Amino acid sequence: MSPGLVRTLRIRSKRRPGGLGTLASAFGDAGASLGEIQTIRIGHNTTLRDFQLLLDDEDHLAAVLDAIKPLEGCEVVEVIDTVERLHRGGKIRMRSRVAFSGVSDLSAATLPGMKQVAQAVADDPSRVTLYSAVARTVAVVTDGSGVTGLNQVEPAAALPVVEAKCALLAHFAGLSGLPLCLDIDTEDRFVETLVALAPSYGAIVVESVSAPRGPRVAQRLAERLRIPIFHEGADGPAIVGLATIINAVRFVGRSFGDVVIGQIGLGTAGGAIARLVMKHQGKPVLGEDFHPGSVSRHVAQGGRASSIEEIMSACDVVVMNTGAPGLIKPSQVREGQVILALSEPRPEIEPFDALLAGAAFAADGRAISTASAFPGVLLGSLAVQASTIDDGMRIAAALAMAGLAEGHDLVPGPLQPGIHAEIAAAVARAAVQRGVARVVVDNALLVAAVFQELIADERLLPLRD
Amino acid sequence: MSPGLVRTLRIRSKRRPGGLGTLASAFGDAGASLGEIQTIRIGHNTTLRDFQLLLDDEDHLAAVLDAIKPLEGCEVVEVIDTVERLHRGGKIRMRSRVAFSGVSDLSAATLPGMKQVAQAVADDPSRVTLYSAVARTVAVVTDGSGVTGLNQVEPAAALPVVEAKCALLAHFAGLSGLPLCLDIDTEDRFVETLVALAPSYGAIVVESVSAPRGPRVAQRLAERLRIPIFHEGADGPAIVGLATIINAVRFVGRSFGDVVIGQIGLGTAGGAIARLVMKHQGKPVLGEDFHPGSVSRHVAQGGRASSIEEIMSACDVVVMNTGAPGLIKPSQVREGQVILALSEPRPEIEPFDALLAGAAFAADGRAISTASAFPGVLLGSLAVQASTIDDGMRIAAALAMAGLAEGHDLVPGPLQPGIHAEIAAAVARAAVQRGVARVVVDNALLVAAVFQELIADERLLPLRD
Repeated sequence: MSPGLVRTLRIRSKRRPGGLGTLASAFGDAGASLGEIQTIRIGHNTTLRDFQLLLDDEDHLAAVLDAIKPLEGCEVVEVIDTVERLHRGGKIRMRSRVAFSGVSDLSAATLPGMKQVAQAVADDPSRVTLYSAVARTVAVVTDGSGVTGLNQVEPAAALPVVEAKCALLAHFAGLSGLPLCLDIDTEDRFVETLVALAPSYGAIVVESVSAPRGPRVAQRLAERLRIPIFHEGADGPAIVGLATIINAVRFVGRSFGDVVIGQIGLGTAGGAIARLVMKHQGKPVLGEDFHPGSVSRHVAQGGRASSIEEIMSACDVVVMNTGAPGLIKPSQVREGQVILALSEPRPEIEPFDALLAGAAFAADGRAISTASAFPGVLLGSLAVQASTIDDGMRIAAALAMAGLAEGHDLVPGPLQPGIHAEIAAAVARAAVQRGVARVVVDNALLVAAVFQELIADERLLPLRD
Repeated sequence: MSPGLVRTLRIRSKRRPGGLGTLASAFGDAGASLGEIQTIRIGHNTTLRDFQLLLDDEDHLAAVLDAIKPLEGCEVVEVIDTVERLHRGGKIRMRSRVAFSGVSDLSAATLPGMKQVAQAVADDPSRVTLYSAVARTVAVVTDGSGVTGLNQVEPAAALPVVEAKCALLAHFAGLSGLPLCLDIDTEDRFVETLVALAPSYGAIVVESVSAPRGPRVAQRLAERLRIPIFHEGADGPAIVGLATIINAVRFVGRSFGDVVIGQIGLGTAGGAIARLVMKHQGKPVLGEDFHPGSVSRHVAQGGRASSIEEIMSACDVVVMNTGAPGLIKPSQVREGQVILALSEPRPEIEPFDALLAGAAFAADGRAISTASAFPGVLLGSLAVQASTIDDGMRIAAALAMAGLAEGHDLVPGPLQPGIHAEIAAAVARAAVQRGVARVVVDNALLVAAVFQELIADERLLPLRD
């Protein structure tokens, strides 16, 4: 089971050689994944350390505490709820880029300066991208209907989720996210509210909205507003999924153009992966889903209706997004197959079991993070003021991600240095090539420009606080 | 005429005693207000300095450049548009409070941590103030219909204006402003859009919305949402106006309770000033306006319908917000009167002329800034999660402002250290006393708590950028 609980144990232990190793082993034996270890204080005889653990649940935590209790010279001082602490007070804050160090800043930022700038924009509306933050502002919007792992929650409960996306956009792409939670009852009001506010942002991320509303509002917003719309539930999996398949196929020594690909589960994520794979490969993906409607949509997009049995026997690569843990038995795996069982928290088949059954490569959803995709995709789209995010840009993002993965990683993690600017540059280049960019930047300079934009921003920020 | 243009002259001048004085005098003789002077480079023979000037308009700038041309050893290297430079790229940016220094931050901020926090809020909705930034998030919203000094502009042109308010909220109160520009055609859609997004913020500032829409949407939002609604066009002038009157009356040695007050111009600002003055003084204000509707509203609020002539002859204090420069002739001023001619950019009567005509005290709108009021009022309201901003809180803010003014200032400027936390504390105390606070803080600790909140926020922010 994937970890569901993050806790930090603050432990005082006697100083002796091998003490840390004994403790770390005890955590491992109890099935806890050990994250960061931080030394808090080194005393005369004892050391105080924080051990961050990824655990299944509260029972697992209790079991881990029991397991280390017998260890000599160890005392758990405190169980810290790292998550609670990190989210307290929110994860984001709007900051001023103006230092307000004197009356001159004040008169330039408010009256009379503000009037001069408002008049300049009124005279030429295109200047709003120059004199405001709108060209790098992204509305991250939810209605709380589709938070991963939860049933429909009231909109406010999804606020920590959209704030997390805003924090990632700020940290990894220097973008300004507006966390918006909609308390509405119809798809129309979802769309109308965002259309009414359109002058406020340069792009939209549709976040944690359940199907069918999620894909539909994303589609309608893309039609109504000529700005990049990123549908986290579809675009995230599609881009990261395609990058994952490209690298997995490479790992087993096959050519992407040659392999036969199957997709089990054609919901928002699975359907979007299959669609982008077909756009890039130019061949039908064999698809299967419980819902006849999802299969029809897959066929309409150039896919072929199939069955789990046929997919498992006929395909070189099988991608699964069913939400049904343990759906695939090891006996169904074909020798040399690539198995990507992406449902979370538990996969359709454990990678270890798939490899044992003869798969050439197997991975689950833990190995890939959609947090790697969207900051760069939005930064690149906004850098050239793209009027949309199209398939060419999605594929460019996937190819960039695949190329940036290091060693045996399928895709780069969001913390890998430089990846977001690289993805942004690839997406921006694609937007220019596809003719959807409003600002055309010389290709050779683009990576530099995107980087510079970020650095310049950081230089400009007074950050007095 | 009030300054309409801010420019910085970069001047290279020969180093000699008194050189700076000669230059400064030349600016003064040409009618330019000299702001900051910054030395850029000291060379062997010459000094390079930036002189910030407040000017009337482009013609005035040309005249100033002509005036300094004959000065020996002076060369204007560059005329810098300080305003353009300050607004470029926008005045605000959403930042992450999470450092994302390792995988543990990532897993706590996104999955699985995010799910734990969303579940916690779903289980107990009141926890959203704990686990998100909503309790210190303020929507600053406009439709572009009432930007000071401009006719109705398209909504995007008002974006620099709402961003300025967000920058002030961030800088002076540590609050997180969401700049929202509505492109809508009806009052209903204005209200419905903000109601639909209500889970996203803890308070609303209605900014640059023309009458009658501005007052009406502020009123309707206050009825629909149980959160503080600050109507910048009414609450700003009312609070600052009351503080100004209190201090002006004190300056002339009168008692606030005794004076007879008149208000010429009963629009959004003037009407709001008269209303709050009556709430605090408990006596009718003599009011006059071109529009019979404004007069009726004034009478309904306890005011007395009057005429300019009667007000000028009967009142100890005359407040004017007419937008009609030069409306009052010096001969109309009564000996010993307090004249507050607040219309901008030009007053109803120049303070100098009013004093010459026998006024005991006279000031125009330049002496007071509404930027001093709203950061503290919102911080105080949000600190105790007030369900509204009522007159008791407005009066408390005005009294705090009046008390904080130094020397012969009518109200403190926004840069005066500590004023925003002091105003916040006064407003929060009033909210508790009035029974509209959801969080009750011990009075004695309140100032400290508000301060600490700010400081704690700054400590928590990683500000890696």
